[in-house]
Amino acid sequence: MDAAEFRREGHQLIDWIAEYLETNEDLPVMSRSQPGEIAATVPTSPPEQGEPMARILADFQRDILPGVTHWNHPRFFAYFPANNSYPSILGELLSAGLGVNAMLWQTSPAATELEQRVIGWLAEMLRLPPGFHGCIQDTASTATLTALVCARERTTGFAGNATGPAATLGLRIYASREAHSSVVKGARLAGFGDENIVPVDVTADWALDPDHLRRCIADDLAAGRRPCCVVATVGTTSTTAIDPLPAIGPVCAEHGLWLHVDAALAGTAAILPELRWILDGVEHADSLVFNPHKWLLTNFDCSAWYVKDPAHLERTLAIDPAYLRTDQDPHVRNFRDWGVPLGRRFRALKLWFVLRSYGTRRLRDIIAGHVALARQFAGWVEQTPGWELAAPVPVNTVCFRLAPAGRDAAVRDRLNTRLRDRVNHEGTIYVTMTELDGAATLRLAVGQRATERRHVEDAWAVLQREADRLLGEVV
Amino acid sequence: MDAAEFRREGHQLIDWIAEYLETNEDLPVMSRSQPGEIAATVPTSPPEQGEPMARILADFQRDILPGVTHWNHPRFFAYFPANNSYPSILGELLSAGLGVNAMLWQTSPAATELEQRVIGWLAEMLRLPPGFHGCIQDTASTATLTALVCARERTTGFAGNATGPAATLGLRIYASREAHSSVVKGARLAGFGDENIVPVDVTADWALDPDHLRRCIADDLAAGRRPCCVVATVGTTSTTAIDPLPAIGPVCAEHGLWLHVDAALAGTAAILPELRWILDGVEHADSLVFNPHKWLLTNFDCSAWYVKDPAHLERTLAIDPAYLRTDQDPHVRNFRDWGVPLGRRFRALKLWFVLRSYGTRRLRDIIAGHVALARQFAGWVEQTPGWELAAPVPVNTVCFRLAPAGRDAAVRDRLNTRLRDRVNHEGTIYVTMTELDGAATLRLAVGQRATERRHVEDAWAVLQREADRLLGEVV
Repeated sequence: MDAAEFRREGHQLIDWIAEYLETNEDLPVMSRSQPGEIAATVPTSPPEQGEPMARILADFQRDILPGVTHWNHPRFFAYFPANNSYPSILGELLSAGLGVNAMLWQTSPAATELEQRVIGWLAEMLRLPPGFHGCIQDTASTATLTALVCARERTTGFAGNATGPAATLGLRIYASREAHSSVVKGARLAGFGDENIVPVDVTADWALDPDHLRRCIADDLAAGRRPCCVVATVGTTSTTAIDPLPAIGPVCAEHGLWLHVDAALAGTAAILPELRWILDGVEHADSLVFNPHKWLLTNFDCSAWYVKDPAHLERTLAIDPAYLRTDQDPHVRNFRDWGVPLGRRFRALKLWFVLRSYGTRRLRDIIAGHVALARQFAGWVEQTPGWELAAPVPVNTVCFRLAPAGRDAAVRDRLNTRLRDRVNHEGTIYVTMTELDGAATLRLAVGQRATERRHVEDAWAVLQREADRLLGEVV
Repeated sequence: MDAAEFRREGHQLIDWIAEYLETNEDLPVMSRSQPGEIAATVPTSPPEQGEPMARILADFQRDILPGVTHWNHPRFFAYFPANNSYPSILGELLSAGLGVNAMLWQTSPAATELEQRVIGWLAEMLRLPPGFHGCIQDTASTATLTALVCARERTTGFAGNATGPAATLGLRIYASREAHSSVVKGARLAGFGDENIVPVDVTADWALDPDHLRRCIADDLAAGRRPCCVVATVGTTSTTAIDPLPAIGPVCAEHGLWLHVDAALAGTAAILPELRWILDGVEHADSLVFNPHKWLLTNFDCSAWYVKDPAHLERTLAIDPAYLRTDQDPHVRNFRDWGVPLGRRFRALKLWFVLRSYGTRRLRDIIAGHVALARQFAGWVEQTPGWELAAPVPVNTVCFRLAPAGRDAAVRDRLNTRLRDRVNHEGTIYVTMTELDGAATLRLAVGQRATERRHVEDAWAVLQREADRLLGEVV
């Protein structure tokens, strides 16, 4: 492809994306593709001869697009939002065009310095207390792994890095039973082992119980085990429960434990003055992650990762081979030592584009709008006989279920699972489930850029309609 | 930004990228920006009000671009290539526009199935033996970490995941002294500890010495330690040395060690029939990584990661919270369990665009051209008095140094370091250094899409010119 073809096809593709984002609400949200169907459209061998881009893009639309689940559909209510926006898309485009690797300051000073600036902008928007330093990582999973390793090395005085298992026997990680699966995964990866992840009980609102945390730590100390790290979740995946940092922080301080705050989804809500309380107590944290790629209009991947002690982080992760040394090393930040991968994209561009193009006021309005819509939906559920709200709604996610009187728990579980399948295949909306106290629970997470009140009304209508049909069939 | 502004600014940005890539050879390769200079152009707080994209893009060109080191400049010879191409840029654009999260099959069947197809295309291009299954990861660092954890869990029968340090005492990793720093980093992250990374000697060509590997393993077994994993490098970072898989493989088989092949840069060269030998013996490998984002015209990040036993990989990394379960799980591949992060971009698109737009023949021609240029440069060095070639040139990277007669080693080190600084600041080229047997060594890596013979000639000319000046000054 030469420059002329790139210009021509690039303009077409820009137009196609605009058209797609303006009209995707007419598409079924979840792909209806069957396993193997998309693969069957693609030859098993690559072509020997190059092909014109126009043909490839036509194939994309015909063969690939039907296999796409539309995450930026205004009626995508599944999992968590992973929204994007026009300025973010342009930022990713420019980053791809430059093709910069931001592993070292020298390999593109602008990539490092703009990243430092925009990560500071986000800290200001979240009103993080002074003393947090950050960078962009790919995902909260990776950031949490990094935090666990930092904790391991602080507790062992870097003996974990030096000698491995001999230095890390009995190290303990505490997180609530509702913490994200990435905590378990990170703990395994970092060599702690499942049996050293202590599941802390939750209170009635699904948030970590700080009294139980104290007891777990005391039991471990009494048994000669070594408390190391607490992962507090601000906005759990199932219910967006907010672990109480003001109570957890002092426990960590008392025992010298690393406090990592996983605010992957809900952190964004802290840009709203009325929801900033979810980060109350964050001054106790040693590290924090939240994902602008979930709910701040910046396309995946863009995870904001903060630490209080960059020197500790760098010493934990530093590698210093001859081929990566530069004269500026003593004077600059080399983000290669801030995470797992060595190579890094110029992700600051898309975040800079989003924050400038929208401005903080508009972003607050959008997030506040999502929160209001989630609460509205929760209100409809609460007021409707035969339905129940399964958890409080502090942020943007509603946990609820169809709960017709006179059906036992097993029947209710089957009903809700079938209801999810019905509505998802019907296509108007896409919702997913979780389990709360073992009960099948529907989740509706509001957070797409284009989601308006009418889309949430559509969701409630289709859920009620399909529920009525289902109940009619199984009576 | 509305759709109309996106179309307008998107077209402009496409045109700007085309112009940039066509004309960037007129720019100094390495940014001349001083520490803090770019940050000083960016306000410390985000704007309250949104701004027009045209203004933001103008600021980018004026304030940010001077801080960019041009990785896709045809005279970028530093580190390793991280090239891109027009189809790849369009693929990344489309991926950003769709905003898909490919963590599960259901969250976009096309993302998983197209990824399976194109990863199969690459396997065919590399003529990997049957039995390798793959996916796209972000970087080789992450893939190597994943391999080390797979090895740990195979050796311990998953007791590492279950019980942590108690099960992993004394596990040993073997890699040559020339292996990439990501092996040490991965081993630390995965809890092995530095003292359990056994640095294996290299032979005269900087490749791992299989006899020494045997002795290291025998010594460890005699001492009651537990050999676990060998990382073989196909194309080391310093010299692109090729560790001998045909000799290493049987050693691993004999002792039941996981064999991970790090072919991050050089793997691409195996698409050439005349260089396929670098992967001879790959049938012994349990896992392999190579980076299309380095040298196969696919912009960062796009790392191809293969394993022989997907069931083992999935069992090692599997997490199965209620909120991620789908009905299709028994029938489909969920790539969430193939790497560290949960979330995943739709990276298959850019690879599909590149492989189809270029076709395999053209890609082979481009790679062969780079190899030929590197050898040509090596020939010039060899034939020129006062210069020396520091290592063989099996692939695309030339290690060399200015070696005027009558100067001792310390003077030569200073001369070469100063020469690097001179040429990099002069701007025609960008080269980096490594150490070989403690001696400062210049590296010239050929691998940018637009690099032609004249660019390599320019490199040799500027190196000789600046060397002459330098020698004139210090005489």
